[in-house]
Amino acid sequence: MTYRIAVIPGDGTGPEQVREGLKVLEAVAQLEGFKYETVIYDFGGERYLRTGETLPDGAIEELKQFHAIYLGAIGHPDVKPGILEKGILLRLRFELDQYINLRPVKLYPGVETPLKDKGPEDIDFVVVRENTEGLYCGAGGFLRRGTRDEVALQISINTYKGVERCVRYAFEYCRKRNKKKKVTLCGKTNVLTYAFDLWERVFHAVGEEYPDITRDYAHVDAICMWMVKNPEWFDVIVTDNMFGDIITDLGAIIQGGLGIAAGGNINPQGVSMFEPIGGSAPKYAGKNQINPLAAILALAMLLEHLGEERAAARIERAVQEVCSKHLKSLAAGRMGYTTSEVGDLVVRYL
Amino acid sequence: MTYRIAVIPGDGTGPEQVREGLKVLEAVAQLEGFKYETVIYDFGGERYLRTGETLPDGAIEELKQFHAIYLGAIGHPDVKPGILEKGILLRLRFELDQYINLRPVKLYPGVETPLKDKGPEDIDFVVVRENTEGLYCGAGGFLRRGTRDEVALQISINTYKGVERCVRYAFEYCRKRNKKKKVTLCGKTNVLTYAFDLWERVFHAVGEEYPDITRDYAHVDAICMWMVKNPEWFDVIVTDNMFGDIITDLGAIIQGGLGIAAGGNINPQGVSMFEPIGGSAPKYAGKNQINPLAAILALAMLLEHLGEERAAARIERAVQEVCSKHLKSLAAGRMGYTTSEVGDLVVRYL
Ligand SMILES: CC(C)[C@H](C(=O)O)[C@@H](O)C(=O)O
Ligand SMILES: CC(C)[C@H](C(=O)O)[C@@H](O)C(=O)O
Repeated sequence: MTYRIAVIPGDGTGPEQVREGLKVLEAVAQLEGFKYETVIYDFGGERYLRTGETLPDGAIEELKQFHAIYLGAIGHPDVKPGILEKGILLRLRFELDQYINLRPVKLYPGVETPLKDKGPEDIDFVVVRENTEGLYCGAGGFLRRGTRDEVALQISINTYKGVERCVRYAFEYCRKRNKKKKVTLCGKTNVLTYAFDLWERVFHAVGEEYPDITRDYAHVDAICMWMVKNPEWFDVIVTDNMFGDIITDLGAIIQGGLGIAAGGNINPQGVSMFEPIGGSAPKYAGKNQINPLAAILALAMLLEHLGEERAAARIERAVQEVCSKHLKSLAAGRMGYTTSEVGDLVVRYL
Repeated sequence: MTYRIAVIPGDGTGPEQVREGLKVLEAVAQLEGFKYETVIYDFGGERYLRTGETLPDGAIEELKQFHAIYLGAIGHPDVKPGILEKGILLRLRFELDQYINLRPVKLYPGVETPLKDKGPEDIDFVVVRENTEGLYCGAGGFLRRGTRDEVALQISINTYKGVERCVRYAFEYCRKRNKKKKVTLCGKTNVLTYAFDLWERVFHAVGEEYPDITRDYAHVDAICMWMVKNPEWFDVIVTDNMFGDIITDLGAIIQGGLGIAAGGNINPQGVSMFEPIGGSAPKYAGKNQINPLAAILALAMLLEHLGEERAAARIERAVQEVCSKHLKSLAAGRMGYTTSEVGDLVVRYL
């Protein structure tokens, strides 16, 4: 069998990062003896500026034919915020029903965290973010826009279906992960008394089916504090789309920054998409300075998702070696190596 | 003239904290020669459990007669989340139209931050949080509650009036503060394309009236990263109610924790309310172990708001002395002193 992988290099530094990921893919496929083919799609800001099109007709159907999607970054400085995000990234997440955003927050040995007195044994948890509803649904509107009486609404839509499958994924993941056996719901039950009433009820109803797993709850504001002060308390955190967006970026910074933070947009019954979460970083585009490790780890997540666990573990180990033996910093331009040299190093340690 | 101050000690450790604040108030009033009187209100969880009432009829009108309100904490373990918060704290904020939540994030010398390589010169900014609308308005509802077809909506309502006065307050505050002269809007323009479209337009329209002040924008997820990685970038951050809730707690942790974080709920044309932001901490209630410095700093903010700037500065200095010369930690139970001893120490250094 040959894995079919759709590749969307995207904007800014996306292509440079993805290039290194594909370099690692080629090497690890050889070592592990699996076959794959890639098809490159040029979705992104350049194409939009040229054609006025975010995703062409039929793109979604076409993408459904792949085993997985590998994404660089979406976001272009010349395009108004929201257009590419909604027209490409969020549309893929929603239309491919990638209802889980999975974000491991793990500090590798040799990587520097900005937190005092915290090491790899303290920072090792996973955020399971709902990825297809909540405030991201796009519902809302204006009344009397542009006047002094303007009202702007933004609506969070939460469904039993959406919350249930997300919460269940979190409990299943926690069981499989088999570490602290604890799932923490991150919400705001005392203020968002509709949305998180649903979340809380579903969390406990589903959680009762997992007597081996401890259930914990904290308000999102407290979660942010504890991620900085006591990250060792967490195992699996489950939350809605907006809070998930916030706490996963906070997670990225405590694990060493965007240079190393990867995520998966997962539809367990469909096609999933893996990406470095750092964005398109336009100011580094084309400079061969961006850190490709996040994209390389996204590739590892992709391979793990396809069942190539050994290949994934191999990449993860190689990344760790490169972090602890070579890089001066994970930050773009300060690694002590170029983007392609870092890719080469990872290949060397495979 | 005699300042009339309404005191709501509230729940959990609220009363213990407020007691130390009032001790400091008495001492500083004598030193500075101003007069005040206090009226104590028993609003909170105990009263609710006894009477079923959150705020009695007429309470709001009565509170409007004061120069300021001094609040301990609201929140009781035996009351379902949301009831006291909405029935007391949020109701006071909304009905007294305290449209600004002001949160100085300042690391005092001698206080330990959980961040590596950051000192008092790096952590000194202010969050101006909108305090009367957004997701906190309570709008929302259920469809088919309790079934597998349930839908739960939570609605963020943003008005020109609400956003404009908040943004203007931020620019005015930044000018008066006279430090980096920069206001950063914290939003999510690429996803919350209604709410933050309004925010962004108003931010720039108002900001144009302040040519001496730099305007900056960042998504909330990036703000959370930078608060940990580069807090020195910030001067004044302005944001909506929900994002403000999140980033102010993150701010509290980087400035040393809830033991030292105070905030003001401000209506510049009406009566304002000042509070330590740490909540009621039920597990420490009655133990004389909670850190009262946040409540004492809330009192300093209250006095500054009343125009007693010298008294406020005096308290702030005394708190700094106590932090750098005495306390082993700011955490409850680990200060090396009891709650009342810490209050006494502050009085000694006034
Ligand atoms: C680019 C943006 C729309 C996206 C999000 O908010 O989900 C990003 O921040 C992320 O977390 O993947
Ligand atoms: C208690 C709660 C309702 C409140 C809020 O969310 O505003 C608190 O967290 C705060 O920040 O003052």
